[in-house]
Amino acid sequence: MSEHTIPNLRHSVEAFVAEDVGRGDRTTEAVVPADAIGRARIEARERFVVAGLEAARLCFEAAGGGLEWSVEVPDGHVAEAGATIVRMSGPLRTILTGERTALNLLARLSGVATMTSTYVERIEGTGARLVDTRKTTPGLRSLEKYAVTVGGATNHRHGLDDGILIKDNHIAAAGSITEAVYRAKGVPHGLKVEVEVEDLDGLDEAIAAGADAVLLDNMTPEMVSDAVMRAGGKALLEASGGITLENVRSYAETGVDLISSGALTLSARAVDLALEVE
Amino acid sequence: MSEHTIPNLRHSVEAFVAEDVGRGDRTTEAVVPADAIGRARIEARERFVVAGLEAARLCFEAAGGGLEWSVEVPDGHVAEAGATIVRMSGPLRTILTGERTALNLLARLSGVATMTSTYVERIEGTGARLVDTRKTTPGLRSLEKYAVTVGGATNHRHGLDDGILIKDNHIAAAGSITEAVYRAKGVPHGLKVEVEVEDLDGLDEAIAAGADAVLLDNMTPEMVSDAVMRAGGKALLEASGGITLENVRSYAETGVDLISSGALTLSARAVDLALEVE
Amino acid sequence: MSEHTIPNLRHSVEAFVAEDVGRGDRTTEAVVPADAIGRARIEARERFVVAGLEAARLCFEAAGGGLEWSVEVPDGHVAEAGATIVRMSGPLRTILTGERTALNLLARLSGVATMTSTYVERIEGTGARLVDTRKTTPGLRSLEKYAVTVGGATNHRHGLDDGILIKDNHIAAAGSITEAVYRAKGVPHGLKVEVEVEDLDGLDEAIAAGADAVLLDNMTPEMVSDAVMRAGGKALLEASGGITLENVRSYAETGVDLISSGALTLSARAVDLALEVE
Amino acid sequence: MSEHTIPNLRHSVEAFVAEDVGRGDRTTEAVVPADAIGRARIEARERFVVAGLEAARLCFEAAGGGLEWSVEVPDGHVAEAGATIVRMSGPLRTILTGERTALNLLARLSGVATMTSTYVERIEGTGARLVDTRKTTPGLRSLEKYAVTVGGATNHRHGLDDGILIKDNHIAAAGSITEAVYRAKGVPHGLKVEVEVEDLDGLDEAIAAGADAVLLDNMTPEMVSDAVMRAGGKALLEASGGITLENVRSYAETGVDLISSGALTLSARAVDLALEVE
Amino acid sequence: MSEHTIPNLRHSVEAFVAEDVGRGDRTTEAVVPADAIGRARIEARERFVVAGLEAARLCFEAAGGGLEWSVEVPDGHVAEAGATIVRMSGPLRTILTGERTALNLLARLSGVATMTSTYVERIEGTGARLVDTRKTTPGLRSLEKYAVTVGGATNHRHGLDDGILIKDNHIAAAGSITEAVYRAKGVPHGLKVEVEVEDLDGLDEAIAAGADAVLLDNMTPEMVSDAVMRAGGKALLEASGGITLENVRSYAETGVDLISSGALTLSARAVDLALEVE
Amino acid sequence: MSEHTIPNLRHSVEAFVAEDVGRGDRTTEAVVPADAIGRARIEARERFVVAGLEAARLCFEAAGGGLEWSVEVPDGHVAEAGATIVRMSGPLRTILTGERTALNLLARLSGVATMTSTYVERIEGTGARLVDTRKTTPGLRSLEKYAVTVGGATNHRHGLDDGILIKDNHIAAAGSITEAVYRAKGVPHGLKVEVEVEDLDGLDEAIAAGADAVLLDNMTPEMVSDAVMRAGGKALLEASGGITLENVRSYAETGVDLISSGALTLSARAVDLALEVE
Repeated sequence: MSEHTIPNLRHSVEAFVAEDVGRGDRTTEAVVPADAIGRARIEARERFVVAGLEAARLCFEAAGGGLEWSVEVPDGHVAEAGATIVRMSGPLRTILTGERTALNLLARLSGVATMTSTYVERIEGTGARLVDTRKTTPGLRSLEKYAVTVGGATNHRHGLDDGILIKDNHIAAAGSITEAVYRAKGVPHGLKVEVEVEDLDGLDEAIAAGADAVLLDNMTPEMVSDAVMRAGGKALLEASGGITLENVRSYAETGVDLISSGALTLSARAVDLALEVE
Repeated sequence: MSEHTIPNLRHSVEAFVAEDVGRGDRTTEAVVPADAIGRARIEARERFVVAGLEAARLCFEAAGGGLEWSVEVPDGHVAEAGATIVRMSGPLRTILTGERTALNLLARLSGVATMTSTYVERIEGTGARLVDTRKTTPGLRSLEKYAVTVGGATNHRHGLDDGILIKDNHIAAAGSITEAVYRAKGVPHGLKVEVEVEDLDGLDEAIAAGADAVLLDNMTPEMVSDAVMRAGGKALLEASGGITLENVRSYAETGVDLISSGALTLSARAVDLALEVE
Repeated sequence: MSEHTIPNLRHSVEAFVAEDVGRGDRTTEAVVPADAIGRARIEARERFVVAGLEAARLCFEAAGGGLEWSVEVPDGHVAEAGATIVRMSGPLRTILTGERTALNLLARLSGVATMTSTYVERIEGTGARLVDTRKTTPGLRSLEKYAVTVGGATNHRHGLDDGILIKDNHIAAAGSITEAVYRAKGVPHGLKVEVEVEDLDGLDEAIAAGADAVLLDNMTPEMVSDAVMRAGGKALLEASGGITLENVRSYAETGVDLISSGALTLSARAVDLALEVE
Repeated sequence: MSEHTIPNLRHSVEAFVAEDVGRGDRTTEAVVPADAIGRARIEARERFVVAGLEAARLCFEAAGGGLEWSVEVPDGHVAEAGATIVRMSGPLRTILTGERTALNLLARLSGVATMTSTYVERIEGTGARLVDTRKTTPGLRSLEKYAVTVGGATNHRHGLDDGILIKDNHIAAAGSITEAVYRAKGVPHGLKVEVEVEDLDGLDEAIAAGADAVLLDNMTPEMVSDAVMRAGGKALLEASGGITLENVRSYAETGVDLISSGALTLSARAVDLALEVE
Repeated sequence: MSEHTIPNLRHSVEAFVAEDVGRGDRTTEAVVPADAIGRARIEARERFVVAGLEAARLCFEAAGGGLEWSVEVPDGHVAEAGATIVRMSGPLRTILTGERTALNLLARLSGVATMTSTYVERIEGTGARLVDTRKTTPGLRSLEKYAVTVGGATNHRHGLDDGILIKDNHIAAAGSITEAVYRAKGVPHGLKVEVEVEDLDGLDEAIAAGADAVLLDNMTPEMVSDAVMRAGGKALLEASGGITLENVRSYAETGVDLISSGALTLSARAVDLALEVE
Repeated sequence: MSEHTIPNLRHSVEAFVAEDVGRGDRTTEAVVPADAIGRARIEARERFVVAGLEAARLCFEAAGGGLEWSVEVPDGHVAEAGATIVRMSGPLRTILTGERTALNLLARLSGVATMTSTYVERIEGTGARLVDTRKTTPGLRSLEKYAVTVGGATNHRHGLDDGILIKDNHIAAAGSITEAVYRAKGVPHGLKVEVEVEDLDGLDEAIAAGADAVLLDNMTPEMVSDAVMRAGGKALLEASGGITLENVRSYAETGVDLISSGALTLSARAVDLALEVE
């Protein structure tokens, strides 16, 4: 992740730091001299996949800046418990003021990457790709989607504008899958048309209507297997709903193209890490 | 929660919806007629304490507006599994476009309120108050702190500007607890001076220096008990670090004033709920 | 176009009006009493397809508001020379202050819709769809793309994020069409992969690599005809480059799926219209 | 043009690039390695007056930055067809992501400068000055007004706040030219009072009322000639309405001070230029 | 003053209230029930000219809104000591949260209007107009300039863009008054060219160079008198520098057109007023 | 003051300069060549305590930047009449365009610091601390509060969120001092609870209710003396209301902890200083 990978990253991080600092870090201003220099490191307290170091670095920039910053375990690598992830040195006020926001971000994003990598490992060797969903934390979509890629999965739509996904309510409004797919032809042609179906009849109708992809909603691995055979490569297939670490491999072995899981972002827990001033 | 309880709530929610909608909800624009009217309800899929309905409502306003909105289980009340929390009716496009962001917010905030209430129930009848920390999701501080109050706890500092909390690194920079507390006297006098200590000597020094409150870091319930006696009411005492649902009551029974837990916001999981179009 | 069709429309229009008003409409403030009421109409001075009335209406809202607004020739309809497009009445200051920005927008957007409709008429009855490009006026992308749809064409990508279009420089960077298409598989799967090619060999390679669509760059209608046969429906084909009003139909008759033209937005001229106070 | 010539130029350009990039340049991210270096030049495909290079440069800064930038034909100079206007080298991703917005801006602004210079050449040697109007593209006023000066003309008002221009509707609201001019005396005295008139009686009344300038609306060159004699230097005279490349010199030879033309910005077409990666 | 008189007034006031409220009005939230209703009035504690009521009203809107608002002494009228200026009723929280910012604004703006009216009274019956300067409070320029007009004076330039004022340093950079005036001809012709001079030779040169107005800097009334005769109506004359309440009439009686005083905004003191809850 | 002492300082100053510059500094653009270099100094025209130099420096950065900046009398030091406070050299356009806003800020902030220091000197040797209030200029709160500290006083609350101050209207809404203090216990515990009282009974009740601080409103020094004895150190005492330079010492000698004065910010006058180009 460079600053430019995520549009507006610097701006977002400045808002996050401002949310914490408010009118000023009263404790640090009062207690720590403006010219005090410090050295610190961020340490892993458990094993995890690191994600979000550039966001963390920008927190300290927004908190006053002026730090030397030396990464030891970059994004996408595993930090063992006790490992030093990054070392920094410079104005002690910057370190203390930026600390909390930087850790909050890094812990959450590393949590997403770590959970993702666990799922990815489970399906290794199958042809299936793991993808995320739009069940992300409001305000953190881009960062969490980035963390998902760090963990080895790929992204589903980033929003309502970069992909068509026709769900049950859309179908109901249109009257049928066929009609809904037909209507979706009016959108920019760079967007694939994906349709959510609940059974194999829906799959057949979606493919016949010209859908580029079909989301198989809440089907068992057996049903997904049937769907794969039925589709015969005529549409990209995505299994979704009820995916767990336990069953993800049985889905992957069906030959389905994509497996999506909201849990990657919704249920990831913040990893345990800390900033130590030396 | 009214719109004015949380400064800038409307503005924040608009940014959250914009993050999801981007250049437009291509599926809904293409498939759902602009004049289609719909009715929907948000349903609990498990038992939880509701929090964040006003934020959810504003999501639908930002997504096009025009909905009737009728709350059945308001913030702070328990929704049983299967319960309808809110009913809405109006433009179907609004409902479908706003759905995901509204649910993402409501699930997360209700999760915080629910976890908080579980802790609060455990310490009922003791004099201790449960408080949160600054370990919140970047960008959601005010909303998560609100959810904590919905769950029955009270808030610690909202940021670095509305309370003094002198931690180990501040003390190190100042040279001693005494000096750090002394320096903190220059800040606006409306802020209490709280000092984090690791042992009873620290507690003694902090009180002698005039601290208004002392944070007892990572102490066992026994040590906290000793601290309570030692302090003799001369400062507010806060137990922090290592608090779990299992041990929170033993801390509460020590007579300590406050028990703070980062888990309320850091480890709360999103509750299970869904929007059903009828 | 309702206010919600184009994200941020109100905000954009407010910025446009602010650009004109600056510190205040000194003439109107000085000369026109605050309570003067006026009636006005926007009149076509030539024949054109109307587009942008909602944007025009919001100009007057931003300039003070309070107008009755009654549309006589709505977006997408043809206004004959001399026709009244919209009537308004209310504070005269609002009318005079908002006039210039409203007309600037309406004239330009109607110009885009009008030029588009001319092209669309030419290809009527063929199966080809006319699409726009990213050669739009900076700051007006959404509005101009809207005007293109009003004129009867459909939109290509709205930006670099809602479609993959691999151009010559991307291919050069990847080494080959095949490699470039392969790399594009890592993006969100809702995006189609389109490749720009300059000859039929390129077309063959793109299809073999799995491209969803192929842009035929600067080919004659004859070459496009060959490409259509060669592709045999395995990819969406788009003719682009050198399209003029004169030759657009010969391209359309080749059986190509899409014909894109930067001229729709780049070369459209503002139509002639005026606001008359009555 | 330096970055500071146009207030907020950097901010505007960032918004223009963001409009194109959206959530990210998916093609370039996927296909072009982050460390690929490229060299490119912007080439004129026809003869034109260059305007807007600093805006173009800022597009590439907003798209990732890091480019060497070497101008060969600066703003205000003529680029012959085939000429290299600027060379750049640096991150290939920056070049490809910034390209479209940079070209869109440069083509439009150079178009305005080129059309302006054509008019200016026609009136060379007369004492008349060519000026623009407020018929500019919403959001591009400052840039287009800058391009007009590059083309050799001068600017009329930049907005409603830096000049008084009393038009027919203002006069109607005031009751008479005399009353309207009288009322305009209350505005900041740094602003000249200009009045639009339709005949020589209006001119007489405006001058008698103390107008600093008079706009002669839609008059023939003969009428303008009469007006010049009638005014006898007592007010600045501006000919406006119906000015074309064909008749502009006959207006200029009347001795009128200013000739204003909306066509400079309204009807200028984008020049033909391209970015070539080498 | 209506909300639209001052561009962005609502936005500015929201920022002012946000500056005071920050993360929330902790006292009022805790102590005053959300449904408490109150009545209050703003009372003059001394005699002054009222200015800024619309800004005050918007403070309460930004603080929660919902108030009935009934003005008894409108802008531009004199409030006697003890007079009720405005009555309001509605949510008590709104009243208490908005109070301080509303009073801060109203006291300052009324102070400017009051001081201005004192100067204006002194020069009554002379033909001179009193004007303000750019010595305003940063962030309050438009509001203070509005208050100056409420007090009966007129405004000088609102900023560096709506008038040309060539000062000593500009003249030094240009080499001479003549050259500086000549150069200023390139600016938008709607702006008058004013030149600051320090003696009568400067006045002569400025007029000869074609200046529209001349600022007579730090001259005695006698020198100004000479200047008026010397200028013979060929340029607008402005006396500036060292103007006091004591000497303002002697300047006004010289026949000078304008007298400018930075003191109107720079030295005005906040008037004494208070909000009383009933 | 470094740029980071006051959150958003750079952003605020940019807005202040933009308020003055608007569409551009027309005079300087026209008259002063872009490459002209100048040297200037800011000179004290009277004796005062300097405050706000960093804000002034940022004005010149916002106005074009590129200046060498060398401070001779830093913030908090006394500038004698005639003293050079800062020297600068660089682009003359930057100097002339930034001048007015820089001086407006510096004059006002130095005025606040100077008035504050006069009060502070009066109470030297007593144990009382002088504090400011929320009677600040809207938009300048942080800067004026900074100037108060430069003058030797300390800050009261920065806003409604960093301290509890229960005033008469809050008490009325709660029913009694006791109830109001009780309710305030729900707020973040880092905030002290201060209560405004009008007599000694109120003081007794406030202390009994557990108030951390008591504001003695409009009491004579004698009453304050009584209050100090009565409180016996059980709460911080603040004298407020009617404090003047004449009586401030008699209040300070009562043993009261804090003396607050709105006059520090409300009544401070801008000091006399000027920028001289050399």
